[in-house]
Amino acid sequence: MPTRVIYDVMNKKIAELPDHRDHAQCSQHMTAVHDAMDILSGKWKIMIIGSLSFGKKRFMELLRDVTGIGAKMLSKELKDLEDNDLVKRTVYDTKPVTVEYELTEYGNTLQEVIGSIAQWGAEHRKRIFNK
Amino acid sequence: MPTRVIYDVMNKKIAELPDHRDHAQCSQHMTAVHDAMDILSGKWKIMIIGSLSFGKKRFMELLRDVTGIGAKMLSKELKDLEDNDLVKRTVYDTKPVTVEYELTEYGNTLQEVIGSIAQWGAEHRKRIFNK
Repeated sequence: MPTRVIYDVMNKKIAELPDHRDHAQCSQHMTAVHDAMDILSGKWKIMIIGSLSFGKKRFMELLRDVTGIGAKMLSKELKDLEDNDLVKRTVYDTKPVTVEYELTEYGNTLQEVIGSIAQWGAEHRKRIFNK
Repeated sequence: MPTRVIYDVMNKKIAELPDHRDHAQCSQHMTAVHDAMDILSGKWKIMIIGSLSFGKKRFMELLRDVTGIGAKMLSKELKDLEDNDLVKRTVYDTKPVTVEYELTEYGNTLQEVIGSIAQWGAEHRKRIFNK
């Protein structure tokens, strides 16, 4: 493995560190993370998709599920997700109108991502409580 | 599977939808996602961890890797990650001082999460370019 050397002020070698960085691979990886986070940034979108991964939900159900979000923000986030083809909004001709949100087929491809986040969150919670 | 029925204004049944929602399971899942996003919220933290997953980095290297972040924000985010025991900061007594950041053992447990985000981001990029 390549290393890089760190010198002190007198040019004496004080450390030699392994250099894990493969720049091309790293930059490709970062672009991919960047692209995903462009769509998922903020904690709300991931939480909304997490909630919808359990099936269709109405607006008020989402508002209750996604702890801490306000109606205005939820509405904006759902619109963003719709624009990105991740969420489908269906209006039923009832009175009052029933509006349901569900993941599109494409939105469903995020299930694995959300799953691994949820798994990590559960481990993290255990760790915090054991401290 | 349980269903729920949607009626129109004349109380005529217009749709019967499968009800996937298992409330206990859903709420547990949402708590886990919430806990994880409390720590990872915003797009920067996930990108910083993504960059550090390729090895130790200096501040300026991170600034270049994490496209779009400013120095002040990077400094704040690194501090948050340090406080949560995800990132370790090491100062070497060089002149000028060398400061390196690396993932802690605990920070390394996020690799799988970041990996699945990167994978989705790469697929997403393909999809956008094929449109």
